Amino acid sequence: MQGQSQQQAYDRGITIFSPDGRLYQVEYAREAVKRGTASVGIRTPDGVVLAADRQVSSSLMEPSSVEKIHKADDHVGIASAGHVADARQLVDLARRRAQGEQLRYGQTIGVETLTRAVTDHIQEYTQTGGARPFGVALLVGGIDDGEPRLFETDPSGTDYEWQAAAIGSNRNEIQDFLEEQYQPDADLEAGIELALRALGSADDEPVSAENVDLATIDTEDETFQTVSQERLESIVAEIDQPDAEESDE
Amino acid sequence: MQGQSQQQAYDRGITIFSPDGRLYQVEYAREAVKRGTASVGIRTPDGVVLAADRQVSSSLMEPSSVEKIHKADDHVGIASAGHVADARQLVDLARRRAQGEQLRYGQTIGVETLTRAVTDHIQEYTQTGGARPFGVALLVGGIDDGEPRLFETDPSGTDYEWQAAAIGSNRNEIQDFLEEQYQPDADLEAGIELALRALGSADDEPVSAENVDLATIDTEDETFQTVSQERLESIVAEIDQPDAEESDE
Amino acid sequence: MQGQSQQQAYDRGITIFSPDGRLYQVEYAREAVKRGTASVGIRTPDGVVLAADRQVSSSLMEPSSVEKIHKADDHVGIASAGHVADARQLVDLARRRAQGEQLRYGQTIGVETLTRAVTDHIQEYTQTGGARPFGVALLVGGIDDGEPRLFETDPSGTDYEWQAAAIGSNRNEIQDFLEEQYQPDADLEAGIELALRALGSADDEPVSAENVDLATIDTEDETFQTVSQERLESIVAEIDQPDAEESDE
Amino acid sequence: MQGQSQQQAYDRGITIFSPDGRLYQVEYAREAVKRGTASVGIRTPDGVVLAADRQVSSSLMEPSSVEKIHKADDHVGIASAGHVADARQLVDLARRRAQGEQLRYGQTIGVETLTRAVTDHIQEYTQTGGARPFGVALLVGGIDDGEPRLFETDPSGTDYEWQAAAIGSNRNEIQDFLEEQYQPDADLEAGIELALRALGSADDEPVSAENVDLATIDTEDETFQTVSQERLESIVAEIDQPDAEESDE
Amino acid sequence: MQGQSQQQAYDRGITIFSPDGRLYQVEYAREAVKRGTASVGIRTPDGVVLAADRQVSSSLMEPSSVEKIHKADDHVGIASAGHVADARQLVDLARRRAQGEQLRYGQTIGVETLTRAVTDHIQEYTQTGGARPFGVALLVGGIDDGEPRLFETDPSGTDYEWQAAAIGSNRNEIQDFLEEQYQPDADLEAGIELALRALGSADDEPVSAENVDLATIDTEDETFQTVSQERLESIVAEIDQPDAEESDE
Amino acid sequence: MQGQSQQQAYDRGITIFSPDGRLYQVEYAREAVKRGTASVGIRTPDGVVLAADRQVSSSLMEPSSVEKIHKADDHVGIASAGHVADARQLVDLARRRAQGEQLRYGQTIGVETLTRAVTDHIQEYTQTGGARPFGVALLVGGIDDGEPRLFETDPSGTDYEWQAAAIGSNRNEIQDFLEEQYQPDADLEAGIELALRALGSADDEPVSAENVDLATIDTEDETFQTVSQERLESIVAEIDQPDAEESDE
Amino acid sequence: MQGQSQQQAYDRGITIFSPDGRLYQVEYAREAVKRGTASVGIRTPDGVVLAADRQVSSSLMEPSSVEKIHKADDHVGIASAGHVADARQLVDLARRRAQGEQLRYGQTIGVETLTRAVTDHIQEYTQTGGARPFGVALLVGGIDDGEPRLFETDPSGTDYEWQAAAIGSNRNEIQDFLEEQYQPDADLEAGIELALRALGSADDEPVSAENVDLATIDTEDETFQTVSQERLESIVAEIDQPDAEESDE
Repeated sequence: MQGQSQQQAYDRGITIFSPDGRLYQVEYAREAVKRGTASVGIRTPDGVVLAADRQVSSSLMEPSSVEKIHKADDHVGIASAGHVADARQLVDLARRRAQGEQLRYGQTIGVETLTRAVTDHIQEYTQTGGARPFGVALLVGGIDDGEPRLFETDPSGTDYEWQAAAIGSNRNEIQDFLEEQYQPDADLEAGIELALRALGSADDEPVSAENVDLATIDTEDETFQTVSQERLESIVAEIDQPDAEESDE
Repeated sequence: MQGQSQQQAYDRGITIFSPDGRLYQVEYAREAVKRGTASVGIRTPDGVVLAADRQVSSSLMEPSSVEKIHKADDHVGIASAGHVADARQLVDLARRRAQGEQLRYGQTIGVETLTRAVTDHIQEYTQTGGARPFGVALLVGGIDDGEPRLFETDPSGTDYEWQAAAIGSNRNEIQDFLEEQYQPDADLEAGIELALRALGSADDEPVSAENVDLATIDTEDETFQTVSQERLESIVAEIDQPDAEESDE
Repeated sequence: MQGQSQQQAYDRGITIFSPDGRLYQVEYAREAVKRGTASVGIRTPDGVVLAADRQVSSSLMEPSSVEKIHKADDHVGIASAGHVADARQLVDLARRRAQGEQLRYGQTIGVETLTRAVTDHIQEYTQTGGARPFGVALLVGGIDDGEPRLFETDPSGTDYEWQAAAIGSNRNEIQDFLEEQYQPDADLEAGIELALRALGSADDEPVSAENVDLATIDTEDETFQTVSQERLESIVAEIDQPDAEESDE
Repeated sequence: MQGQSQQQAYDRGITIFSPDGRLYQVEYAREAVKRGTASVGIRTPDGVVLAADRQVSSSLMEPSSVEKIHKADDHVGIASAGHVADARQLVDLARRRAQGEQLRYGQTIGVETLTRAVTDHIQEYTQTGGARPFGVALLVGGIDDGEPRLFETDPSGTDYEWQAAAIGSNRNEIQDFLEEQYQPDADLEAGIELALRALGSADDEPVSAENVDLATIDTEDETFQTVSQERLESIVAEIDQPDAEESDE
Repeated sequence: MQGQSQQQAYDRGITIFSPDGRLYQVEYAREAVKRGTASVGIRTPDGVVLAADRQVSSSLMEPSSVEKIHKADDHVGIASAGHVADARQLVDLARRRAQGEQLRYGQTIGVETLTRAVTDHIQEYTQTGGARPFGVALLVGGIDDGEPRLFETDPSGTDYEWQAAAIGSNRNEIQDFLEEQYQPDADLEAGIELALRALGSADDEPVSAENVDLATIDTEDETFQTVSQERLESIVAEIDQPDAEESDE
Repeated sequence: MQGQSQQQAYDRGITIFSPDGRLYQVEYAREAVKRGTASVGIRTPDGVVLAADRQVSSSLMEPSSVEKIHKADDHVGIASAGHVADARQLVDLARRRAQGEQLRYGQTIGVETLTRAVTDHIQEYTQTGGARPFGVALLVGGIDDGEPRLFETDPSGTDYEWQAAAIGSNRNEIQDFLEEQYQPDADLEAGIELALRALGSADDEPVSAENVDLATIDTEDETFQTVSQERLESIVAEIDQPDAEESDE
Repeated sequence: MQGQSQQQAYDRGITIFSPDGRLYQVEYAREAVKRGTASVGIRTPDGVVLAADRQVSSSLMEPSSVEKIHKADDHVGIASAGHVADARQLVDLARRRAQGEQLRYGQTIGVETLTRAVTDHIQEYTQTGGARPFGVALLVGGIDDGEPRLFETDPSGTDYEWQAAAIGSNRNEIQDFLEEQYQPDADLEAGIELALRALGSADDEPVSAENVDLATIDTEDETFQTVSQERLESIVAEIDQPDAEESDE
């Protein structure tokens, strides 16, 4: 609707409104998110699953160093998509905030409170000049008073709560897949499977376990736990041969 | 009246006057408000109704996280339209201001005083360089000395007091509807109904209860109360079959 | 005399001089004043009258919230025209300044001193970068040592003292009307009438009482007093039927 | 000599040198001075005369509020031409400086010292970015150790000492007139007459007393004194009918 | 995909997003890295090898002053590629950080922790205005709890962990060579040989020992050690005549 | 060599290098120096002579206020050419520096030390943004340990020591004249004559005493002394009729 | 490879990367170095020689004031090429740094440490906005623990160690000459001769002693010593008539 030369006028320098009320720098930051590989979050009654597709560009690179899933606190994990270095800043902020809560009040921070601390920081970078917005989206999952919670933050500083959500590359396709397949009462194990199948859904081929980073925060332990590569491989194998597995059980 | 290339010259960088005395960045911020879904406020002798249309983009998104109505203090609620993350900043400012009044003077803050604190903050962002204006309009409703009050703030930092007002998408159509239908002496229940019908008026079809966020602050309790989804559904049902309902009573 | 493309070069960014020694941002701020509805001030031997045309855009808007006349101190009132949120900042500055004088020196501030505090603040915004000028003109009326005083401030930070003055929309027409009709020795009552007739003079039809905000500061009480809507209506009625009224007396 | 498009390149943003070593913003500020009505200063052995042409735009405006001549200290007056609000800032600076000298050292400030304080401030605004130069010229007159002194400040921050000088509109014509008519040993009375005739010289018609602001600082009282409107009228009358006056004497 | 004139719009001034979500200044900083001579890092079970190609432009220049490999702490070395002066700033930061850890906690800093301190600093320069990104990539090698670690930092502030990695000129060719030749269980001596052969691989001719800077941090001593020029020469000789050498042994 | 449109690109905003390594703002500041009337300095074994051509634009201006020669300390004088208000800032800096030396160390400041303090300040304005360079050159003359010294400062912040030097308008012509006529062992009186003849040399006609400001600092008194107008007139007369004078002697 | 209009886009305002990873402002600063007259440094086993070509533009200028060789500490000298006033800032920095080392630790500063302090400062000006890079290169020569050291700093903030190096005008020609003629084991006397011949090598004619500034720091005294004009003249004479000289010996 808006011509290209017109658009150019509003997307430079500090973040300002275009005539139709848009913040182009924020929208471009959303494009930076889309350039990142996908992450998904699944909320089950037993806990939250965070899974991320990590593209390792060389066989000599340590897959573990392509960090897409981060522990923010004992009971909170964060998956990211987009600008990697920006994500680390926000994860660090979340960690400091969680530690501060522990130190000052002697209690674990709420997942929603923690998400808000992050989105307030993100929003500030979209309004005050002299800096660009954060080019990253996050999925913040954890346990609040025994309840699993899953939040998304976007580059505008808005947060949303989800049952299951995808961010990053092919977000729309994966979200469609989740909407079709998500079952609210499935258990954590099923949530892990759904997460892995969702990451593979956009390419119409199963993900390979070595390209996936996956963690859970369950309601029992309320503890962030990375799922081992071995277990991932066995689950991926199950997904590929669902009939065989079913007959096993 | 003003050519496009001419206009472009005045809407970049910091907020400055155009030759005809307009502040384009503020006007564009108003466009950001129009891009948000509508909110309405209704003042009745028994209290204030705040209602908002919340568009939930996915069946997996928690509707409650698309926050459009916020509690600012026990006796004050705020409905917003426009840039969500900006709205949260202003709501937070209002909360801190209300708490400060309580702490410093041991008394609840007046609704008008609170609104002014917010609009002073908004105005500053339209005059001092290095930041963009807030892309959000608010409806601030509450009880002052037993009297229901309803204020609107706009992106220029101006506030207005209303009997009934709409902000956001389709503002003009909804405001026209309110001007036709508003009855100053109707009770709170009627106010809730009017708010729901007003939100549906632009689309010429009734709103669905699940897409509405609604709260009241009545003169008796002087307390912000969210109306439950169940009650909203029954009221919406009444609106759709007004004759049947009437015969029930 | 000056071509358009040439002019454009001097009206962006910070407030700087054009080759012919003009400050375009200040001149554009004056245009913002003209976009506001008119206010008039009348000085009589018995006191000062401040009156403002307030345009209420909807029947549901509280006319009182379209604030055009403000009490700055017990003995000083301010009428404004132009950018509403800017006016509020200057009125707040005047109030703080008046209170400060009371607190520090235990005496009421002079009307001229108060006006200067405001215009010094306005001037600063026309010289130092990083902010735009104030888009508002004020009429500051009050009593100094028993003497009625009436000052105007403009967006350049200049102040003028008047017997009777108009600011805002149709300023020139209303000022011409005042120059013809003003009688220095008329009493306050006549001043109120003149103010109302002046506001209506540009449209060649009488003002409606409900669209007018009017206050007086008389030499006896030295107190800012808003004239009630009822009294305004009766005065407007008198104006409309001057012969009938005269015969009544 | 310099084309227009070339010139434009050097007169924006902060005050910088053009290729031929000029500071355009300072030169444009000089244009702002020329846009102001004229002021003249006359030094006589008995004291200094400051006179200013004040254009009152409406019969309802208080001429006294179109302030062109200011008392800076008991023994120093300042006449201005150009941007009125800028002039007020410099006069306030001069007053604070004079009071500071009194407070710190218990002595009246020298006229030259005071002028330098003002021009140092003006210079700073021509070199450091983030602000525009002052658009005003001043004539600073007073008594130093019994000697009358008369200084001019210009927008570059330069000061000059004069026997008789004009600033503002028609400066050149009035200065030519002064060069022809000035007599170093004429008394203060003759100085007042010369000032009034000088102000009228550019229009080839006598000034009207009501449009003139005139003050003297004589060597006897060393005190700034405004000349009353009545006395101005009688002097102007003398000027208009010099023969009749002479025969009277 | 993106035209050149379009691209230019997003790569000036502060670091901002382009419409497709890229940070051009960061990408150009990556070009600055490619302009620097290559460095490689090899991780073996016995320790880490850092090697750099140093181009000495004159026979009179001290090769040792073309510093490409730096000791950051006793157990950590850093190889750089790109803007030399920028590299020194980051190495100094790493040193201060390592010393601070020693002083505050009395323990050696972890290699990963140290790398993060560096990448956090790099990231800040890509988001906050008023400075350009760092035009340098680093290979940080060292021993963590007896384990050899090798990290890369890039100009976006991202870090990756590697078994073997190349940065700088001909990075892709050298990385391909490493992927073919790297053997995870080769000893440190073999690692040194591989590093030297990798540096020569892009030119298809063996490196000359005098143009190489090489250091190791082995798991036994956990100490950064520069390999002497003599030893380098003998190893290079071995590489050139592998058959002869083998028969010698 | 460099086209005009190319050049324009490097001479705006802050002081930056052009592709050929020039600082245009500094070069333009040198043009500002050339726009000022000339000053000359002559070093003789008996002391230093500073002389300046002062153009008085009106017969009513006090020549003494067109200050070109300034006393910086008892034993140091400064002559200037260029932007008058800038010169005053540097002279004030020199005075404060000289007084500070006296206060802190109880000794007179060296002429070279003083000159360096000034040029350090000038240099800073050519490198740090947010201000323009100083548009003035100075000749600093004085006595150091009984030795006459004469320094020049230019707008880049460089200083040079001279036997005899000219700055400002016609600098090259006057410097050529000085190179031809200067005799290192001539006495102070001859130095004064040479200075006056040098100032007149560019116009090929003798200077008029009233347009000259001249001061000496001799090795005997080590004191800055202004040469009186009377003495200047008699010396100029001598210069005009050298033969007559010679025969007189 | 890169067109001119393209290049212009990256060399204005703050120092940023061009698409091919270059910092144009730094490269232009290198051009400023080339505009300065040449300096050379020679390291011999007995000490370091610093020599500079100083162009004296007038016979009346004191050659000593065209300072190209500076004493930074007792045992360190600095030769410069490029922007003279910039060089002075860096030399002053070096002096303060050397004095600080003496004061804080009671020991002389290392030549390499001192050079790094200078290049760190230079680097900062190439990365942080609001200032231009330093337009100067330095040769820092001195004695470290009895060993002669010679470093070069360039405008990017890089330093190199040399046996013999040239900076400034004709750098490449002189460096070629040095590479041909330099003998590592020649004594200090031969080093002085080589320096003088190198300075003359670009013009193919011997330098004149009066245009040369030359200093040595030898390993015996570890003291910066300027070589007198007389001695320079005799050495230059020797160079011109090498045969005659040799036969004399």
